[in-house]
Amino acid sequence: QRTGIAEAVLCDGKSAAQIEAILRHAGERPLLLTRLETALFHALPAESRAGLDHDPLSRTAFHGAVPPPALDGVCVVCAGTSDLPVAREAVRSLAFAGYRAPLVADVGVAGLWRLMQRIDEIRSHRVVIAVAGMEGALFSVLAGLVAAPLIATPTSVGYGVAAGGRAALSSALASCAAGLTCVNIDNGYGAACAALRILRSMEGRAA
Amino acid sequence: QRTGIAEAVLCDGKSAAQIEAILRHAGERPLLLTRLETALFHALPAESRAGLDHDPLSRTAFHGAVPPPALDGVCVVCAGTSDLPVAREAVRSLAFAGYRAPLVADVGVAGLWRLMQRIDEIRSHRVVIAVAGMEGALFSVLAGLVAAPLIATPTSVGYGVAAGGRAALSSALASCAAGLTCVNIDNGYGAACAALRILRSMEGRAA
Amino acid sequence: QRTGIAEAVLCDGKSAAQIEAILRHAGERPLLLTRLETALFHALPAESRAGLDHDPLSRTAFHGAVPPPALDGVCVVCAGTSDLPVAREAVRSLAFAGYRAPLVADVGVAGLWRLMQRIDEIRSHRVVIAVAGMEGALFSVLAGLVAAPLIATPTSVGYGVAAGGRAALSSALASCAAGLTCVNIDNGYGAACAALRILRSMEGRAA
Amino acid sequence: QRTGIAEAVLCDGKSAAQIEAILRHAGERPLLLTRLETALFHALPAESRAGLDHDPLSRTAFHGAVPPPALDGVCVVCAGTSDLPVAREAVRSLAFAGYRAPLVADVGVAGLWRLMQRIDEIRSHRVVIAVAGMEGALFSVLAGLVAAPLIATPTSVGYGVAAGGRAALSSALASCAAGLTCVNIDNGYGAACAALRILRSMEGRAA
Amino acid sequence: QRTGIAEAVLCDGKSAAQIEAILRHAGERPLLLTRLETALFHALPAESRAGLDHDPLSRTAFHGAVPPPALDGVCVVCAGTSDLPVAREAVRSLAFAGYRAPLVADVGVAGLWRLMQRIDEIRSHRVVIAVAGMEGALFSVLAGLVAAPLIATPTSVGYGVAAGGRAALSSALASCAAGLTCVNIDNGYGAACAALRILRSMEGRAA
Amino acid sequence: QRTGIAEAVLCDGKSAAQIEAILRHAGERPLLLTRLETALFHALPAESRAGLDHDPLSRTAFHGAVPPPALDGVCVVCAGTSDLPVAREAVRSLAFAGYRAPLVADVGVAGLWRLMQRIDEIRSHRVVIAVAGMEGALFSVLAGLVAAPLIATPTSVGYGVAAGGRAALSSALASCAAGLTCVNIDNGYGAACAALRILRSMEGRAA
Amino acid sequence: QRTGIAEAVLCDGKSAAQIEAILRHAGERPLLLTRLETALFHALPAESRAGLDHDPLSRTAFHGAVPPPALDGVCVVCAGTSDLPVAREAVRSLAFAGYRAPLVADVGVAGLWRLMQRIDEIRSHRVVIAVAGMEGALFSVLAGLVAAPLIATPTSVGYGVAAGGRAALSSALASCAAGLTCVNIDNGYGAACAALRILRSMEGRAA
Amino acid sequence: QRTGIAEAVLCDGKSAAQIEAILRHAGERPLLLTRLETALFHALPAESRAGLDHDPLSRTAFHGAVPPPALDGVCVVCAGTSDLPVAREAVRSLAFAGYRAPLVADVGVAGLWRLMQRIDEIRSHRVVIAVAGMEGALFSVLAGLVAAPLIATPTSVGYGVAAGGRAALSSALASCAAGLTCVNIDNGYGAACAALRILRSMEGRAA
Ligand SMILES: Nc1ncnc2c1ncn2[C@@H]1O[C@H](COP(=O)(O)O)[C@@H](O)[C@H]1O
Ligand SMILES: Nc1ncnc2c1ncn2[C@@H]1O[C@H](COP(=O)(O)O)[C@@H](O)[C@H]1O
Ligand SMILES: Nc1ncnc2c1ncn2[C@@H]1O[C@H](COP(=O)(O)O)[C@@H](O)[C@H]1O
Ligand SMILES: Nc1ncnc2c1ncn2[C@@H]1O[C@H](COP(=O)(O)O)[C@@H](O)[C@H]1O
Ligand SMILES: [Mg+2]
Ligand SMILES: [Mg+2]
Ligand SMILES: [Mg+2]
Ligand SMILES: [Mg+2]
Ligand SMILES: [Mg+2]
Ligand SMILES: [Mg+2]
Ligand SMILES: [Mg+2]
Ligand SMILES: [Mg+2]
Repeated sequence: QRTGIAEAVLCDGKSAAQIEAILRHAGERPLLLTRLETALFHALPAESRAGLDHDPLSRTAFHGAVPPPALDGVCVVCAGTSDLPVAREAVRSLAFAGYRAPLVADVGVAGLWRLMQRIDEIRSHRVVIAVAGMEGALFSVLAGLVAAPLIATPTSVGYGVAAGGRAALSSALASCAAGLTCVNIDNGYGAACAALRILRSMEGRAA
Repeated sequence: QRTGIAEAVLCDGKSAAQIEAILRHAGERPLLLTRLETALFHALPAESRAGLDHDPLSRTAFHGAVPPPALDGVCVVCAGTSDLPVAREAVRSLAFAGYRAPLVADVGVAGLWRLMQRIDEIRSHRVVIAVAGMEGALFSVLAGLVAAPLIATPTSVGYGVAAGGRAALSSALASCAAGLTCVNIDNGYGAACAALRILRSMEGRAA
Repeated sequence: QRTGIAEAVLCDGKSAAQIEAILRHAGERPLLLTRLETALFHALPAESRAGLDHDPLSRTAFHGAVPPPALDGVCVVCAGTSDLPVAREAVRSLAFAGYRAPLVADVGVAGLWRLMQRIDEIRSHRVVIAVAGMEGALFSVLAGLVAAPLIATPTSVGYGVAAGGRAALSSALASCAAGLTCVNIDNGYGAACAALRILRSMEGRAA
Repeated sequence: QRTGIAEAVLCDGKSAAQIEAILRHAGERPLLLTRLETALFHALPAESRAGLDHDPLSRTAFHGAVPPPALDGVCVVCAGTSDLPVAREAVRSLAFAGYRAPLVADVGVAGLWRLMQRIDEIRSHRVVIAVAGMEGALFSVLAGLVAAPLIATPTSVGYGVAAGGRAALSSALASCAAGLTCVNIDNGYGAACAALRILRSMEGRAA
Repeated sequence: QRTGIAEAVLCDGKSAAQIEAILRHAGERPLLLTRLETALFHALPAESRAGLDHDPLSRTAFHGAVPPPALDGVCVVCAGTSDLPVAREAVRSLAFAGYRAPLVADVGVAGLWRLMQRIDEIRSHRVVIAVAGMEGALFSVLAGLVAAPLIATPTSVGYGVAAGGRAALSSALASCAAGLTCVNIDNGYGAACAALRILRSMEGRAA
Repeated sequence: QRTGIAEAVLCDGKSAAQIEAILRHAGERPLLLTRLETALFHALPAESRAGLDHDPLSRTAFHGAVPPPALDGVCVVCAGTSDLPVAREAVRSLAFAGYRAPLVADVGVAGLWRLMQRIDEIRSHRVVIAVAGMEGALFSVLAGLVAAPLIATPTSVGYGVAAGGRAALSSALASCAAGLTCVNIDNGYGAACAALRILRSMEGRAA
Repeated sequence: QRTGIAEAVLCDGKSAAQIEAILRHAGERPLLLTRLETALFHALPAESRAGLDHDPLSRTAFHGAVPPPALDGVCVVCAGTSDLPVAREAVRSLAFAGYRAPLVADVGVAGLWRLMQRIDEIRSHRVVIAVAGMEGALFSVLAGLVAAPLIATPTSVGYGVAAGGRAALSSALASCAAGLTCVNIDNGYGAACAALRILRSMEGRAA
Repeated sequence: QRTGIAEAVLCDGKSAAQIEAILRHAGERPLLLTRLETALFHALPAESRAGLDHDPLSRTAFHGAVPPPALDGVCVVCAGTSDLPVAREAVRSLAFAGYRAPLVADVGVAGLWRLMQRIDEIRSHRVVIAVAGMEGALFSVLAGLVAAPLIATPTSVGYGVAAGGRAALSSALASCAAGLTCVNIDNGYGAACAALRILRSMEGRAA
């Protein structure tokens, strides 16, 4: 029935009471919660919190029994430390779906040699998620170096003309390197779902 | 060396003389030409034209010996007749790379039953490219109905707030259906390259 | 003298003192208050609060004796839980004017079957108000399924390119389904007033 | 099956050959053609032209036997001469559907007395379509004077900050007068369809 | 030396300490302070506060001996209560410069008769300042009714497409009524300075 | 009845036939025609052309007997040669209304000394119109040097971020020099009308 | 290895814990910290604070032994007091790299004589950094008066159309004075780095 | 007196007659003409053309005796063939001022190895001008590899979100590599002037 990832609750804009109701209603069924800021997590009753595996940096939580991820095939690459929340939202969403995705961080293009040192590791995956803010030059550079499907995830990191992520988004869409696709600004969850669509189609599990 | 499709020349913004030089320099090597408007095609010397398989609607041409496509796995879906040039740019780019992609046209969401009549045919492919202009509602509807990787290609079709394709692009990026990715406005070639990255990764040919 | 709904006070941007003065001045006369956030409501003197029927979710309040709604003819449809405040602002504005409007919620297009299950119920009304944020694909889908007047109400729900509601607004305006009209982002009150203009014109009460 | 107006072909972006094919395929069935510029009309074969009732100003044409409009209930109001093409696109679309809609022209707000002289005539209709470009102040003024459903149709008339119609569109959406709805810029056809939804719902013909 | 109003300090973005230093340095010299929010005013030392005539609504304060205004010639017109802070910023700036400007409030175009009731009073001034947010239709209506110089002052009042004041600004600039000029969004002080340039030029005091 | 300048016909967007009809209908009555491009002027019948005093650079024409301007009080200042069409539209509109306005050209701020050489001449007028494109720095510099009413007229001259005139418009509105007002981009006619409102109010002729 | 300034940490968006970890890891190595707001500075452990030379106005801090600047060649010019945080960010970044840059403040173009009084001092440097918000007219005026490399740094100071710094940025880019370059809005650090690239290239130290 | 390059005439927007007048008035004095499209060049009288050294690709022409360039110190780098007109406008403007600047073309980041092959050649100059359209990733990559002053020149090359050059401009401004500056979109002339300011300041010739 579902076309992508099993279940996800976008907590941003919901009250602690509403989230609690959703968790109660879910019972044993595993749930992925996204955009669950630490403050909102702490506003939940102790009982609810006890049933959650919460990761503050990515603002995600797992409800119910989520087995450790055991499948391979995708990695997440990000440019700077400020992009980590979004990059880890992708990693955690993949883990929830059973895939362990290594995170290759701090490989922005201003220090190209750092990216080149890890390019073979990146190339060893069937799908690559790239996360970058500011001017998003990482997307084009990576698309020129990697033949696998590349999912660009622009972040809202930056100020001035970069504020809000429009500059990075435009860089992903207008890239001179062909075959790159992209998702909405800050949408690490969506990037993970896109990777899952590919991985499952590869495994003959889509449909 | 190349990460995606073999060779492509973006003719828009090049003179007939420049294109002729590129063709001469290519010799026997197959080349895909995109954005080759009919007027520009006719401005080429007869000799050059003779060596080209030109498709006016998609504004593409094949140079050199391009075998008929024989591989399957991807289909292209589009909303209205005005979206055909972009949809066929994708179809032709895939054909150049060896994939025959059926085109499912005229299935805009204002006539939902037409889309539902063909949904099983669409679902039978490993990758789906969706092409739509105006408000781009097709992307979300399709993403909710299909589990395969879905590459949204917004077009510049429309007037008023839709002019230029920004409305359709936003619909693709902001879709409430997860795991949809997108390419630049009118970029049928890029959508095809993205599909090729997926198909080749599936076949173990990426890297 | 008034052309639409009897009386409405937009509380956003007014101080508790200003609102209190308005209520005192109104005396027994029924008033609709909109955008009255819970915090602002609690900043009113107990006496004022006692005379108000306040609904926190829709941020509306009725002042004075408002009879229970008894008229039919309009329903409100919304995509996600985050759209509820705006959807209920429409419902409450209609109730204030005497119309009881059922709320059909959680029928976003990513789960098309849920919308189809309730489409006959929706079709049974003379006017339909549709409320949706993010990419607003609901508007086009509904306009293709319903022949009645359809008033699209985009919401500011969403992030990235959807933040602020522009993406949903563009989808309403650029819809490939004809005859859909729309109001400002988050303007549930305005959508209700537009429905009232239609219902009263039908009943020969406009003018 | 159709929810609104019987049949409409948007000619803008179609070739003469494509339009001819559509007409041939339609046979006797009446068709409304919109955005059929005079040059494109003259590019059609004489035979096709003979079967069309073409109105250059509104860029519309009727194909097949369209009986003279006999129903009442809607009028079209416009601000300046430059708004006439859009205003008449609405009038003609209504005529195609059987409604004769009087056109009240040249009543921009810079000459308020001209609008006041005709306000009773305008008020005598069950639905009002208002067409205006530049700053679109007409929408708010009219919404304050008329109780009937009011469909604002912004036009792309104007230069500087008004170019393209965004200023007039914003005025319609942000109007301080409640219950006004609007359609896309220059969409006279859409405004007519919206009026038809209302008129048919009134007559119990929607559904 | 100065071309316009004597002295003005924009307090927004300055610390209490910086403002205090400016006041001390000014000594007896009269100063106009703008954008002095109540909280910032109260953060000043009691001594500084004692020397200020602070008006919370307009967020202005007079420092030093400012004689009561005695000159006539200008009035300020505004649409809604939310526009009062900006309208009164203009009134206070004029008072500081010696002009007593009556404030004609609550004359938005949705209730045209209220504006018509006061139009002769407005017409009796040599310069008119108009203050309006949302769609700013007041500017065009007034420009059609008044022959005097008209200075439009758009406000940031409104939500959705009106948020931030761009819609009202565009209405002022694109007005179909000729000879209207405008100042920046929320710039009541600038509107007053513009009026002063006109009044002083009339009195032969400019240069 | 009219509040500003006597009569003006905006020819842009009108056909030669429509303009001819207007001229015929006007008879002896003087008319100002604006935006009458040379090509459109030559498309008029010889008879109509004979009755027009057409100025190609400003794209204006006088119809009927327009006495030579004899009143003083306003000057027009412009930055570059590309701004001349707009600057002269202002000069001609003023001439039509009886005012002879000297044009001070080529005084852009990149050559500040040229502006300083003519500043006393500029200061000798009761009203100043400033016309500038690109970054529009002229507006602020002039507002700091002149005490008279200053009407900024941004032009669409420029490319890149200046294309269309938004950069110059923002500079006029956001000027750090107080009391400057502005009109729409390229609106030389509007600037002239604004000056006329001031001059007539000074002369006690407004009302 | 590094191409510009030695080391810089953008603190905005990092937690106190993350900053502390960076400082500990740096050991004796000098570090420049930018965007370290006072509140965040005080959230650091006393020990960390003791090792920092923090400047609240510019929100910068030096970690490690930074010798007093001894080199000359660059000055920083700014328009208003609100531009000081950005201007001083440039000054401090230059000091960290060994250059003492005088700050010429309060020379906005509305008071041109103040700028002229200090123009010879400004001209005595090999590189000039100009910092301005609002309409940014200072950039063009300065570029016309100074022959040295001029680095424009727009600030986000201003409201209405100037809010966020886009108006000042456009003025820098669209300047009618040639050879001016610019950096991102509020990027005082970037302007300093650009000056360092020039100064070091002059001294034969780049590469 | 001039602060930058000797003399330049922007021909875009000037008539052949106006350009001829400028050339005649200049006499023997060397002049640089920019944006002189081939069609406009051919519209000049044969005599004028004879005195011009016109380069169609860059749309520049030299008038008068311009000695061959003999100075070194700057190179121009560009991404694709479509960027050549702007890149050569910079090269020609430098040649006019006496500097011979090599052009390193076709080094876009999608083929990173091509850029790396020429990086030492690029590094051997004291100033580098980088020209790129589409997503402008070249700017950040180059800024990370080169220590010299780097002047980014975004071009309007591209379609969809890249159309007009805003995406490339944002990439230059928001670059994660520090010390990069930029000029307006398509402003090859401005980039050359900026390089000249640096080179002359280095040579002690600025001031
Ligand atoms: N971080 C996220 N970004 C975008 N969409 C999300 C995110 N997390 C969850 N969703 C989607 O939002 C839906 C949940 O919405 P709701 O019913 O409001 O909880 C899920 O089915 C997902 O498709
Ligand atoms: N229709 C298209 N849209 C976007 N990029 C294209 C298109 N066709 C070709 N390209 C890209 O443009 C490059 C050719 O650019 P050029 O060297 O200027 O011919 C190819 O390598 C492709 O990556
Ligand atoms: N002027 C118009 N503006 C917007 N939509 C239109 C217009 N004319 C026709 N349409 C719509 O476009 C559809 C026809 O599209 P097509 O199949 O491309 O001819 C019709 O069913 C209408 O819904
Ligand atoms: N260049 C112009 N820019 C703006 N408005 C103009 C211009 N010329 C004339 N107008 C206005 O347009 C009106 C004429 O419009 P119309 O009736 O369409 O000819 C006049 O009454 C003027 O108010
Ligand atoms: Mg980044
Ligand atoms: Mg479509
Ligand atoms: Mg929604
Ligand atoms: Mg109008
Ligand atoms: Mg208002
Ligand atoms: Mg200029
Ligand atoms: Mg400033
Ligand atoms: Mg490029």
